Amino acid sequence: MADWREITGGITAPRGYKAAGIKAGLKPSGLPDLALIVSDVDAIAAGVFTTSYVKAACVDYCKERLQLKQSCRAILCNAGQANAATGEQGMADALESAELLAKELNISPELILIASTGVIGQRIKMDGMRSGIPKVVKALTETGSEAAAGAIITTDLVTKAIALETNIGDRTVRIGGIAKGSGMIHPNMATMLGFVTCDAAVSPHLWQQMLSRAADRSFNSITVDGDTSTNDSLIALANGESRTPAITEMGAEAEKLEAMLTAVCQHLAKSIARDGEGATCLIEVQVTGAVDEHAARQVAKTIVGSSLVKSAIFGHDPNWGRIAAAAGRAGVGFEQENLRIQLGDFLLMENGQPLQFDRAGASGYLKQIAANSSLPGNLTASNMSNDLDIDRNTVPQQRVDNPVIIRVNLGNGHGSGQAWGCDLSYDYVKINAEYTT
Amino acid sequence: MADWREITGGITAPRGYKAAGIKAGLKPSGLPDLALIVSDVDAIAAGVFTTSYVKAACVDYCKERLQLKQSCRAILCNAGQANAATGEQGMADALESAELLAKELNISPELILIASTGVIGQRIKMDGMRSGIPKVVKALTETGSEAAAGAIITTDLVTKAIALETNIGDRTVRIGGIAKGSGMIHPNMATMLGFVTCDAAVSPHLWQQMLSRAADRSFNSITVDGDTSTNDSLIALANGESRTPAITEMGAEAEKLEAMLTAVCQHLAKSIARDGEGATCLIEVQVTGAVDEHAARQVAKTIVGSSLVKSAIFGHDPNWGRIAAAAGRAGVGFEQENLRIQLGDFLLMENGQPLQFDRAGASGYLKQIAANSSLPGNLTASNMSNDLDIDRNTVPQQRVDNPVIIRVNLGNGHGSGQAWGCDLSYDYVKINAEYTT
Repeated sequence: MADWREITGGITAPRGYKAAGIKAGLKPSGLPDLALIVSDVDAIAAGVFTTSYVKAACVDYCKERLQLKQSCRAILCNAGQANAATGEQGMADALESAELLAKELNISPELILIASTGVIGQRIKMDGMRSGIPKVVKALTETGSEAAAGAIITTDLVTKAIALETNIGDRTVRIGGIAKGSGMIHPNMATMLGFVTCDAAVSPHLWQQMLSRAADRSFNSITVDGDTSTNDSLIALANGESRTPAITEMGAEAEKLEAMLTAVCQHLAKSIARDGEGATCLIEVQVTGAVDEHAARQVAKTIVGSSLVKSAIFGHDPNWGRIAAAAGRAGVGFEQENLRIQLGDFLLMENGQPLQFDRAGASGYLKQIAANSSLPGNLTASNMSNDLDIDRNTVPQQRVDNPVIIRVNLGNGHGSGQAWGCDLSYDYVKINAEYTT
Repeated sequence: MADWREITGGITAPRGYKAAGIKAGLKPSGLPDLALIVSDVDAIAAGVFTTSYVKAACVDYCKERLQLKQSCRAILCNAGQANAATGEQGMADALESAELLAKELNISPELILIASTGVIGQRIKMDGMRSGIPKVVKALTETGSEAAAGAIITTDLVTKAIALETNIGDRTVRIGGIAKGSGMIHPNMATMLGFVTCDAAVSPHLWQQMLSRAADRSFNSITVDGDTSTNDSLIALANGESRTPAITEMGAEAEKLEAMLTAVCQHLAKSIARDGEGATCLIEVQVTGAVDEHAARQVAKTIVGSSLVKSAIFGHDPNWGRIAAAAGRAGVGFEQENLRIQLGDFLLMENGQPLQFDRAGASGYLKQIAANSSLPGNLTASNMSNDLDIDRNTVPQQRVDNPVIIRVNLGNGHGSGQAWGCDLSYDYVKINAEYTT
């Protein structure tokens, strides 16, 4: 069972962090667009970045920095321009931003990581960045998480934040996180960003290992439409300000910390999946009976990524055939005579053959989850303003609703894994077809 | 250049073949649902089948048969029930069907191949099959291609057929083909079937090699929504009735034959992509500058399968960013500084950076292709009858329109490859969400 409790405060819940989000004039809408997260002391830093061969300047920048030294004091993130496909000038802009922030914070630029989200092919508006950096530094507070969360979003309907706390020895350790991402609503606005803060002391190598595994079990296990961005970045800091003894190898304490880190990442990832464009509900696929966790996750991701399964859920259709077909083509071997499929509490298929089941009841289960899933209103092309941002004054914070649960047993081993996604609605097509560049 | 000419006659254009399609009462609609293709003499047979781990009985049956002996006289195909996820009884039904047809044709059952398409989880209606087999044998004619093509379709808007002819030595050689498939319109009706006849004499091993390569360059290079079926089958017969010398190894004649076989398969595959549910146009992605053909095709398939690219095309949006992002995540390495993207005649990106281009002109290019692409009318949930078949009396034959052409150069080698798909429209979601089981 989960050995932690949810607390308030997001990324500023852990000790020794400040954050801010301000309007720097980068988004045409004038909404907040520059976020800063600062640790009082040098923090251990780990990162997981897009695997795309088309990458933004900030991704190259961060990967280089972290390769040299796994240490960080500040993360600067702009929204509005992705600074991807911008060539050498894009990298020069990233470097200049880091230099300016370093001067303002009076630290080495090597301790700064950078992220961008916005339109691919557009450079950061450097005028706004130059005048924004002193302002965002001045705005730093110990309760700045929500402001930062609001400044990194683009077409998101809600902000995404979480903080958890657990005991290690006689002290508490906290992990907080914020994220942005809502599928691919805006042309070229695909970026998924996650920033995590932690006040435990962890060795750099172990922290990176933990983050990579947590990313596989969270951000890498969600799919909105299968497209991967040029800017996807997940950065996690651990600054030791909890004053707990340093965790340097796997063991009970490390496992506890990793479980909580994974829970933070999963919450953020599910929030992103739920905020998928046009989505009416979150879908969770749980696969068991695979040879290992990787195989199980592969099947889970294929099912939750199937356009057919997604549109069946949108139509409240308990369609075992589409689930079975998606499982079969996931590239993971199994005997179809052993396949078992469950939707909520309804057993749809056993021993590879369809069962008689309460079709109306199963459809009702899907209807009820959609009815109980609430977001501020589905985003459509018409309620998006012309300048990347949805029309809104305040951005509500994410609440992750109960998901539709699909359980699949392959009868092939003891590996299990999960994946999350959302249904496929008319609005998805509407948003992506009508909101042209 | 293509060294063949198009002729009429479909699968009965090659010498020594007869075909038929009749109403056997398998489809609830009463439309034709049982097809038969017969060679006058034993033909060499090759097959390519679904790679899904959830397979129909007929797929297991054919794979076993062809493993024992690459020889065939007849292909029997029913529409209405997929006979997948039907367990041992499903295999017994397939065997019984083969036995009955063997008696009727007075040949060994080992010379019969079987295919099914329809609802997963439903056994073949054996009453209809038993009474239908003598009827379909009686209906065989040397001009029966279109009748057979009409009896294998389910939710297709059009039948798919082609025949080509070339010279080998002083004689002509012909290849004909029919196919069915239109994406995944009906729940669990995903099947893609292709049947090819040829009157050349080819050694079994070589014929299988040619078909496997042709399948990679055609049926395996299309995507409607990424889902692979339980029943997908491509079967090709070569009966030697052209009386040309047997082709037993690669060389000029074999290459000529393989090129024509590939052209037949590509025509059929493009017809299927164009008939994708709710599609308004065909999309062709041509990738060059890859390390090899496989890598090029991988990138082409990823682009044409991207929901974002597909919905941009539907919205007439010349969105280079989505194309670049899809190329980047295809799992094929390249330097983004070398990336070049062209839409029709419009150059959108060069050296990895976006260009200024005539946006209105590029959008007009997409509009014009969609306007010139004609199918009998987009299929919607409301014009589908309740019993798997669209509402129609006559089924028009496919005409493959000009596709939208996307050209991508990775600047990384000399490999090239193509893939085909269709755009993503409101109707796709409508059909898949509203037409529940």
